[in-house]
Amino acid sequence: MKIGIVGLGLIGGSLAIDLRRLGHWVVGVSRRPETCQRAIALGIVDDAGSALSSMAAAEVVFLCTPLGVMEATVQALVPHLSPHTILTDVGSVKQPIVDMLTCYWTPVVGGHPMAGTADSGLEAAQADLFAQRPYVLTPTPATPADAVETVADLARSLQSQVVCCSPQEHDQAVAWISHLPVMVSACLIQSCMAEPHAAILRLAQQLASSGFRDTSRVGGGNPELGIMMARYNQSALLEALTHYRASLDQLIQQVNQSDWGAIATLLEQTQGDRPSFL
Amino acid sequence: MKIGIVGLGLIGGSLAIDLRRLGHWVVGVSRRPETCQRAIALGIVDDAGSALSSMAAAEVVFLCTPLGVMEATVQALVPHLSPHTILTDVGSVKQPIVDMLTCYWTPVVGGHPMAGTADSGLEAAQADLFAQRPYVLTPTPATPADAVETVADLARSLQSQVVCCSPQEHDQAVAWISHLPVMVSACLIQSCMAEPHAAILRLAQQLASSGFRDTSRVGGGNPELGIMMARYNQSALLEALTHYRASLDQLIQQVNQSDWGAIATLLEQTQGDRPSFL
Repeated sequence: MKIGIVGLGLIGGSLAIDLRRLGHWVVGVSRRPETCQRAIALGIVDDAGSALSSMAAAEVVFLCTPLGVMEATVQALVPHLSPHTILTDVGSVKQPIVDMLTCYWTPVVGGHPMAGTADSGLEAAQADLFAQRPYVLTPTPATPADAVETVADLARSLQSQVVCCSPQEHDQAVAWISHLPVMVSACLIQSCMAEPHAAILRLAQQLASSGFRDTSRVGGGNPELGIMMARYNQSALLEALTHYRASLDQLIQQVNQSDWGAIATLLEQTQGDRPSFL
Repeated sequence: MKIGIVGLGLIGGSLAIDLRRLGHWVVGVSRRPETCQRAIALGIVDDAGSALSSMAAAEVVFLCTPLGVMEATVQALVPHLSPHTILTDVGSVKQPIVDMLTCYWTPVVGGHPMAGTADSGLEAAQADLFAQRPYVLTPTPATPADAVETVADLARSLQSQVVCCSPQEHDQAVAWISHLPVMVSACLIQSCMAEPHAAILRLAQQLASSGFRDTSRVGGGNPELGIMMARYNQSALLEALTHYRASLDQLIQQVNQSDWGAIATLLEQTQGDRPSFL
């Protein structure tokens, strides 16, 4: 199959590595000529360049740019696509992206391969990044079934676990398990830094250990990802944050009222519930 | 040196292993005869039994019981201690424990070796658990300097990094980096479980990955530890929770008002601040 990849970062580069190894012809597009040269030199793609006209031959195009430049990219891309080319993206939010892409092209298959590393960019790309990871596809009633099946087959060939749901269901689910944790974790770091006594803050920094390290990890990560989550998944994130605040308010009241029984019930419940997410 | 260890769990057992290897004579006390027999069989202690009278020969006694039984234990212990025996504890909260112990004995040196594993009990005890970890000592103005120095020397012999501060400073610092994270993390799990649509909850559970796993880890841990934190460090925890709620409220307002610039500033700040805790 002839596959185009627009955006040669961690996700685009890793898709290219796997798909080329599977025997597909893979051509990449990046705005930066150095990235194109590097992708060719590393053998990640069959060819790469900065011109979107190279996408004319592709049967499936993976849009792997940051969410913030996706609309400008697809506007520039569609004049070059051949009819019937399947356009799929890898964005971490689906409803606004699928809605937007559908304004410019059909068939569109929204996608979200749920894999990553702490690093980004082409140099972080790796084989088998998506193996044994969920690859969410978010078709709408208007999406042709054969287009969905083509992308699902490609995802399964990466050894991903294909999960199908609506764009809205995807966004609500990731608000809970991906976007809310970033905000909860960022507030932890921010509130600790608000400790008014410098000596206590220094002591806290000196004593912080694995509990703090894990709980603060995603809140101390790449700010751009967090901003995109808030911006593109605003309503689902707000709903999750509102539930979270209610939970926090209740706990604060329980601590304030020395209601240790209620706190015991909470912590026994969360200990029991957590494994269902692992 | 003759060392007594009351409570042969993870911390008491691990202290016994290291101190005995360093050439000290180590005798343990556990309420459960099986634990005593097991500690002797594993060579963790020179001797062990359920009677606190065995502590009469000890020059330093480490109290390693859970916080909740510490007062009853020390009441039963002190009639057996020889004058000048140094009493030190390993509790994760210091002000109420040091205050309580001081009512029954002197010299008392509050201590908190900040090490642990996900497991508990004697079977989880291990050599070198405290190496390269902070060992906080919390003397008060009334604590004899030579008693502090004796415990500090023992802690340094475990290759721990000895940190001295007041009991109150310790409790405020650990409220931020240990107790607040548990509560923040537990509320994350609780609020996710409050998702009203079963299909969305199932999808969230299916898609949860390393971000959720790390952020939820301490909130899904041993409930008893969390309850003890809230109970014995109530005021410092409440203050930390109140700061945290202010931080969360501000973020919710920013998301609600689409103030992406403010969220960018927050996330850039937390990304920059986190390394000071690692």
